[in-house]
Amino acid sequence: MTPRFERVAMVGVGLIGGCLAIDLRREGVAAHLAGTDADPENLDRARALAIVDEIGPLSRVVDGADLVVVAVHPAQVAPVVLEVAAHAPRAIITDVGSVKKAVLAGLEGRLPSGVRFVGGHPIAGTERSGAAAAFPELFRGRRCILTPTAATDPGALSAVRAMWEAVGAEVVLMDPEHHDRVCAAISHLPHVAAYALTAAVAELAGEHPEIYGLGAGGFSDTTRIASSNPQMWRDIFLLNRDAVLDVIDALRGQLDALRSLVAEADAPGMEELFARTREVRARTLRDE
Amino acid sequence: MTPRFERVAMVGVGLIGGCLAIDLRREGVAAHLAGTDADPENLDRARALAIVDEIGPLSRVVDGADLVVVAVHPAQVAPVVLEVAAHAPRAIITDVGSVKKAVLAGLEGRLPSGVRFVGGHPIAGTERSGAAAAFPELFRGRRCILTPTAATDPGALSAVRAMWEAVGAEVVLMDPEHHDRVCAAISHLPHVAAYALTAAVAELAGEHPEIYGLGAGGFSDTTRIASSNPQMWRDIFLLNRDAVLDVIDALRGQLDALRSLVAEADAPGMEELFARTREVRARTLRDE
Repeated sequence: MTPRFERVAMVGVGLIGGCLAIDLRREGVAAHLAGTDADPENLDRARALAIVDEIGPLSRVVDGADLVVVAVHPAQVAPVVLEVAAHAPRAIITDVGSVKKAVLAGLEGRLPSGVRFVGGHPIAGTERSGAAAAFPELFRGRRCILTPTAATDPGALSAVRAMWEAVGAEVVLMDPEHHDRVCAAISHLPHVAAYALTAAVAELAGEHPEIYGLGAGGFSDTTRIASSNPQMWRDIFLLNRDAVLDVIDALRGQLDALRSLVAEADAPGMEELFARTREVRARTLRDE
Repeated sequence: MTPRFERVAMVGVGLIGGCLAIDLRREGVAAHLAGTDADPENLDRARALAIVDEIGPLSRVVDGADLVVVAVHPAQVAPVVLEVAAHAPRAIITDVGSVKKAVLAGLEGRLPSGVRFVGGHPIAGTERSGAAAAFPELFRGRRCILTPTAATDPGALSAVRAMWEAVGAEVVLMDPEHHDRVCAAISHLPHVAAYALTAAVAELAGEHPEIYGLGAGGFSDTTRIASSNPQMWRDIFLLNRDAVLDVIDALRGQLDALRSLVAEADAPGMEELFARTREVRARTLRDE
């Protein structure tokens, strides 16, 4: 059953907020969409592109909303949710941030009683940002993790779940710490690898400038997410520091293991590893 | 000026040989295309798909060819070139392998005098393999590195250069050792990173099986080339071992540097690094 909200406020109309707004309208989930954004140019663009019906300052757009989606960078989630709660104490509030434990800790004991917040994180995105990069159906077939705690209102959880299902996402529930460990592995670690690889190639291009311009499909794909928003990824690594350090150590261990196979010219070991990674990759991308 | 060969033999009609055969025909470079392949099923497919006009054993397809392209995995290049030279001593012979120094060392002093071999390496490909994966225009706008030495016949070099330019590639000349160092950085290292990252995620999925199925765009792109042919990459790492070990050390150094930034919560350092990698990536992919 498609849920129906009379007034949805999108706080942050960047890539994720913009894509979600487009889908909420297409699927008939939102009767009216109001948007706000810290960047006035981006906000004007969202209005010009008809991604939202109405724009204005946060206090005005959330006023009277039955659902507020906080689609700002992870480090801003806690302060923005507190601001939303002050202006729309009866709304259901949810977010889309890729870090949960530190954000929920930042809200604990600070949300006025009766405010219904549900932590959310759609596992989707591109390396681009801003309302102009938004497009329909980003979430279709993707997982969306919700991280309810003992304090979460069951009705609010059902409503947020229904919203994500209406735009085609498959909802998974996890506790916040578990979410952060899983995302460190599947999302934050690929960014670490892409950043380190790009930095290494830059270092090597210092010795061999012919490297510039030679990047083909393999380099391009492997480093695509190294073009992601630098401030956002700085914040994600800071907010999820312990889990990120653990997964970096796992990557370092595997890199050392592969280096040993090469150094020892261990042909069967390499072939076995490469065949196994092909299999694991398929399994990680498919649903199992 | 488009070069014209009466009879081109493609030894190995996999992804690269198949794509090149398609383009040589489309561009009118080859009047007749004969093909052979170690895998009889793949060879039949190449014939069924009209990628080549004629198929048969190596000794027969290279007989009378004016150009022979050896498009086999790097470890097979030297023995196959020697076999081709025995059957077609007057043909121009070139290859497409991603390792050059070890291959040329394997040919040194063993090619009959008068045989004209030119080492080549188009910087293009996908993670798929076989004639069925071939498509037109893979090489358009890509670099193709040729690695002539003092022993290379200038007329043969001109002919091979003209062939690559006819299919849209930009030809760059490099000495074989330099080629191997440059390719270790821009091509072999991304494979190392993709294999190590996939192995690390697999290790972490052992603890958190929810990771399976959660892979989204970032993980998918970053690890795409970890689905490449395991035997071929085993051989590339073995043949180019010294250069590969050096670039792995560069990656390890950058990974350690990033780990320190995270561990020390060095926000400006991270932001600076991530902004720089975004720039370097753009520069590596664009021609400069």
